[in-house]
Amino acid sequence: VTPLGIVSLVGAGPGDPELLTVRAVRRLQEAEVVLHDALVPQRVVDLAITAKRLGVGKRAGQPSCPEEEIVRLMIRAARRGRRVVRLKCGDPFVLGRGGEEALALTHAGIPYEVVPGLSTALAAPAAAGIPVTHRGLSAAFVVVSGHAPAAYAPVLDTLAPASATVVILMGLRTAGDIAVRLMAHGWPRATPAAVILGAWTEDEAVWAGALADLGDYRPTPQQAHLPGTIVIGATAAFACATGQGALLAGMTRGGGRTCARV
Amino acid sequence: VTPLGIVSLVGAGPGDPELLTVRAVRRLQEAEVVLHDALVPQRVVDLAITAKRLGVGKRAGQPSCPEEEIVRLMIRAARRGRRVVRLKCGDPFVLGRGGEEALALTHAGIPYEVVPGLSTALAAPAAAGIPVTHRGLSAAFVVVSGHAPAAYAPVLDTLAPASATVVILMGLRTAGDIAVRLMAHGWPRATPAAVILGAWTEDEAVWAGALADLGDYRPTPQQAHLPGTIVIGATAAFACATGQGALLAGMTRGGGRTCARV
Repeated sequence: VTPLGIVSLVGAGPGDPELLTVRAVRRLQEAEVVLHDALVPQRVVDLAITAKRLGVGKRAGQPSCPEEEIVRLMIRAARRGRRVVRLKCGDPFVLGRGGEEALALTHAGIPYEVVPGLSTALAAPAAAGIPVTHRGLSAAFVVVSGHAPAAYAPVLDTLAPASATVVILMGLRTAGDIAVRLMAHGWPRATPAAVILGAWTEDEAVWAGALADLGDYRPTPQQAHLPGTIVIGATAAFACATGQGALLAGMTRGGGRTCARV
Repeated sequence: VTPLGIVSLVGAGPGDPELLTVRAVRRLQEAEVVLHDALVPQRVVDLAITAKRLGVGKRAGQPSCPEEEIVRLMIRAARRGRRVVRLKCGDPFVLGRGGEEALALTHAGIPYEVVPGLSTALAAPAAAGIPVTHRGLSAAFVVVSGHAPAAYAPVLDTLAPASATVVILMGLRTAGDIAVRLMAHGWPRATPAAVILGAWTEDEAVWAGALADLGDYRPTPQQAHLPGTIVIGATAAFACATGQGALLAGMTRGGGRTCARV
């Protein structure tokens, strides 16, 4: 009987290979099979020197490996005694279906572990110098998926205006609807807002402005492929203005200002 | 003229040295001066092999170095050309006054960078196998400081019941008040709740039960010094039940069940 392998659900962090945890790097180096999201940067995947590596989705708008197939591949490799890494963008348990994969492994009797990663929800604001909490400004923050109103409306339609910093992942397409909703619910039009594109990558770019201008913000065509994180609340004013000391250089534009890592 | 040094605001993560990022380890190894929170574990501080190391607070109920003094020490060392690491528990920009320190460095003209760390807000639930989001159960999560009602009441008194997973840091003392508030606002008494003590340390322990029982939960005297993270919402039911495969072993008690890392 082959001894069971183990599956490590590993967070790849926001993009920079130096922002993986020490354990994540170790698991990748020791892995025999790596199943990675399509959006994990190649130089992170390349840390798995000896493993068989499989890209298994998901890139918006393109066909990807169905979740059931990913789970089937993990279970099969573990039953063959392999050390398997399931490598997911950001943190495996934040909007990444890591919980579903953990449940499937539990039900199949496969040993697994979670190796948390830096979630883009916190690391992207930090890249722009934005703390999600700040004494006197915000003692709480909310993270919502912006992919559809069903995901964010129940929270954003009820939360007291300005009672927390709001962070939205996967919300570039719905930013206009989100801004209108918050203002209708009493958030001031001048509430600071920021968008961080491609956080912790060479393409990182930041827009900072007012909530009332958020709906008009558009990435440039060159930026259209970059994942974006939206921050709404008083601390978003830290973007570009004070963020990261010498690391960011800014310029002012109508309806907000933009800056990039230099 | 001495060239300016640089200050790295570094997140130490939840406690396990392997859960620091690669960059955090590198910065500690290269540092000449390290100013660390009292609660950062010694074996993390010890990664700074050659640095002068100073504990600068803050441990609940004990005298600590005032924030102004911490900032003064950072600025003085940087002006002497030193590579300075300000090492903070979890993530520097989550309930850690990292934003205040970043502003002070900006105003003093000191170059700085942020090296994000794993926030306990996400890593503690993950330690217990709890995803903060899960398809069909929760598309959003809220993180609040539980240290005083002024911090959490504006959010918890308005957020629609069960619209998001709620994560509370520093809330062991106020857990009873928080549970009463949520139930008064319409959260079902049977809503799953969990408490993770000492996440990612040898002392890690998890309690899982219902929101109605949360106020009666108490750590044992041996656990009284451990930091605790509270999770409230459907996904908290994953604690102990399915968490971390073979890594957790559980037992049932009246008013909830408990488990620990084995």
